[in-house]
Amino acid sequence: MNVEGRRYRTIWLKEENPAVVQIINQLALPHRFEIIDLCSVEDVRRAIKDMYLRGAGLIGAAAAFGMYLAVLEAAPEGGGGDPAGFGEALQRAAALLKNTRPTASNLAWAVDRMLALVLRIPGGERRERARLAAQEIADGDAECCRCIGLHGAELIRAIAEKKRGEPVNILTHCNAGWLAFVDYGSALSPVYAAFDRGIKVHVWVDETRPRNQGASLTAWELARHGVSHDLIADNAGGHLMQHGMVDLVITGADRVTRRGDAANKIGTYLKALAAKENGVPFYTALPSSTFDFTLCDGLGEIPIEERDPSELRFISGKTAEGRIETVQICPDESPARNWGFDVTPARYITGLICERGICEASEAGIRGLYPEGNLAPLGLGGAVPEGNLAPLGLGGIH
Amino acid sequence: MNVEGRRYRTIWLKEENPAVVQIINQLALPHRFEIIDLCSVEDVRRAIKDMYLRGAGLIGAAAAFGMYLAVLEAAPEGGGGDPAGFGEALQRAAALLKNTRPTASNLAWAVDRMLALVLRIPGGERRERARLAAQEIADGDAECCRCIGLHGAELIRAIAEKKRGEPVNILTHCNAGWLAFVDYGSALSPVYAAFDRGIKVHVWVDETRPRNQGASLTAWELARHGVSHDLIADNAGGHLMQHGMVDLVITGADRVTRRGDAANKIGTYLKALAAKENGVPFYTALPSSTFDFTLCDGLGEIPIEERDPSELRFISGKTAEGRIETVQICPDESPARNWGFDVTPARYITGLICERGICEASEAGIRGLYPEGNLAPLGLGGAVPEGNLAPLGLGGIH
Repeated sequence: MNVEGRRYRTIWLKEENPAVVQIINQLALPHRFEIIDLCSVEDVRRAIKDMYLRGAGLIGAAAAFGMYLAVLEAAPEGGGGDPAGFGEALQRAAALLKNTRPTASNLAWAVDRMLALVLRIPGGERRERARLAAQEIADGDAECCRCIGLHGAELIRAIAEKKRGEPVNILTHCNAGWLAFVDYGSALSPVYAAFDRGIKVHVWVDETRPRNQGASLTAWELARHGVSHDLIADNAGGHLMQHGMVDLVITGADRVTRRGDAANKIGTYLKALAAKENGVPFYTALPSSTFDFTLCDGLGEIPIEERDPSELRFISGKTAEGRIETVQICPDESPARNWGFDVTPARYITGLICERGICEASEAGIRGLYPEGNLAPLGLGGAVPEGNLAPLGLGGIH
Repeated sequence: MNVEGRRYRTIWLKEENPAVVQIINQLALPHRFEIIDLCSVEDVRRAIKDMYLRGAGLIGAAAAFGMYLAVLEAAPEGGGGDPAGFGEALQRAAALLKNTRPTASNLAWAVDRMLALVLRIPGGERRERARLAAQEIADGDAECCRCIGLHGAELIRAIAEKKRGEPVNILTHCNAGWLAFVDYGSALSPVYAAFDRGIKVHVWVDETRPRNQGASLTAWELARHGVSHDLIADNAGGHLMQHGMVDLVITGADRVTRRGDAANKIGTYLKALAAKENGVPFYTALPSSTFDFTLCDGLGEIPIEERDPSELRFISGKTAEGRIETVQICPDESPARNWGFDVTPARYITGLICERGICEASEAGIRGLYPEGNLAPLGLGGAVPEGNLAPLGLGGIH
C-alpha cells in the first residue's frame, strides 16, 4: 500500500542483499516511518516477540523468512549434502519462532510448512528453494488479502446502496490493515477496496489498549490512504451501536477454529456482544491460513497469551517537542494483568470474509469454502481450482 | 478515607477561612497528592469543568459549595435586606455551574436545591444558611455512601461464603470510590466495607480510557486502603467473565432514570452486556440523589456529554525521571471523538445498591425504596423516617 506516494509491503528481501529481510518498524509508527534489517533467526524472533512487526499474516510471513534465514545459517553457501546437525538446527529455529506468539495461527502454519519443505529438499537446492517458498508465503498472504477486499467490498456496497449517499460507518478493532499482513490487510482490505471504487466510507478506529494498534497503526494507514476516520476509545463502540452510528463491524482474527470461534485482539468479544445486541452485522476477515482446523471450541482450546503488565502500566507517545517519551499511568504500587486476546464465539459472528468468499461462521459454512481443510492456497486467492492445492501448495514453483 | 494514615474527605471548607473551599486535586493523582483552594464560583466552575474534581456525588457537593460561594459574592457581609441583583446573580451562578457537566444528575439536583433555599431565606441569614446547607449536602452524600457500603457488603459476604476462602473478584469501571463522592464512594464503598470486615476481596480495575480514572484514581484509592487489585485494560473484562474470573460487577452511575436505566462512564454498557451473557451479577451503586425521576427511557432521554477529543489523542503520566509529561498517541492528522458516558438499560442491571437498601432496577423496585420520589435524605441514610423528608430536607438545621 501507499506511504507518501510510494508503494510498500510490510516485509521483503533487501534488493542488494537477499540474505537480509527488511520490515517497517511498527514500534516507531505513527510518529516515524522507519525500515529495519533482520539478518538472523534471532533478529526475526526478537522482531516478532517485541512486536517490531505484528498481525496475523505478517507474523506468518516473517516466520517463513525466519526459517529461510535459518536455512542460510545452518546450510552454508556452496555446501552440498547434509551439514552436520542441519535438521536439528532447523527444528530449533522452528521451535524458537513458534514460541514467540502462542495465539497466532499463521505463525505455526508458516513455520511447519517451511520446515516440512526444507527437510525434504536436497542439500544443494535448499537455500534457493527456502527463499522461494518464503516469498511465496508472503505473496500468497498479499493475494489472499486482495481477494478478501474484493469480497468484503460487496458487503459495503450493499449497505451504501441503502444509505443513499451517506457514508457507511465501519467499526474496527486493533489493526488488521495492510500493516498486519504483507499487503492490503484483512479487515481493512474491504474498506480500501470500497474506497478505491468510490464508495463513501467512514471508519471508527478503536484505540485498542493496551498497545494502541488502532490509534498508532490503523489511524496511520487510513490517513495515508485518505480514508475518513475517527479515533475512539475502546469503550465507545457500544454507545455508537446503541445509537445507530455503526453500519458494520469488521475485525481481523489471530486464530479461528473449524466451527468459527475467533480469537482476536482483547476487546473484540465485547464489540461482538454489542453488535449482536444492536443488530449490527459483525464480520471477521481472515485468510484461510488463520484457520486452525485442529480446534473446535475456541474458548476452551485456543491458548490466550498473557503479556507483560508494563504494556498497560506505561504508554509511549510524542511530546510537544517531538520527542518519543514513555510515561507511567498508574500508581507505582498497582500491579496489572495483560491478556492479549479474547475469543468471540461463532454465534456472535455474522460471517467470515475469506479469500474464497464469505461464509457463515460455522463448521458447515467453513467446510463449504474450504472442503480440503486448512491448506491455504498460496498466492492464488479465490480463483484457484481445488486440484492445484498440493499438500504444501508448492507445485507451482518447480 | 485514609491517605497515608490521615483521614480525608474530597471537599471541605478551609478551617482557618470558611470562605474558601478546599479539594483534593484529582488531576495530580496518582503521582502527586495535592490540595487546592477554590475561592469563587468561577474557581468551582473551572474545577468541575476541567475535572480537578469529578464523580457523581462530589460534583453535587462541589456545586453546592459553589452556590454558597455565589451567595458570599452576591450578598456582602453585614449587608441585610436584598442587595440589588441578588436573585439574578444566583440564577447566573446556577446556570454557570449546571452547564459544566450535562450528564451528571447530582449537579443539577444540588444547584436547584441550593438556589431554592437561598432565594427564600431572609437577607441577613443567607450566608450562614447557605454554608450549612452546602455542608449538609456534603455530609448527606458521605452518609449515603456509608450506607451503600453496608448494604453492598452483604452481597459480597454472600458470595464469599460460597467461595470458601477464595477472594471475591469484583470488577469495577471508572472511579466510583471515595474520590468520586465526599467520602466512602458508591461502587467501592461495599468493597471497603467488606474488606474492613475481613472478607477477602480482589478488584479488577478497568483502566477507563480516555481519562484513565481507573488507572489513576481507583487503583490509587485501593492501594491506599491496602485492597488487593489488578489494573486491566477496558478490553479485558469480557475475557475475564468468559473464564469465570469475575464474581460480581459493581459500577457507579451519573444519572439513573425512574425505570432504572443508568448513565455511567463510557464503556459500562459493554461490561453489562458481558456480565449478562456470562451470568455474572451486575450492580449499580448510587445515592438516591443520582436518580432523575423526570426521565424514563435512559437511551432516548439522558444527554450524553461529548468531550474534547484531545482527552483521547493525548495522555499524561510520569516519566522515568518523575516529571509529568503529556504525549500524543495517534497521528497528527487523525481526528477523534470522545463521548463521556453510555447508558446501560435496566434489563442488564441485576440490582441497584442505594443508601436505603438494594432494589431491582425497575420502576417498581425503585418506587419500593423511594416512594416519595427523588428527594434524597440529607445525611440520614437508610435510617430516616419518611416524615422527616421535607421538600428541601432542611427541617433539621433550624
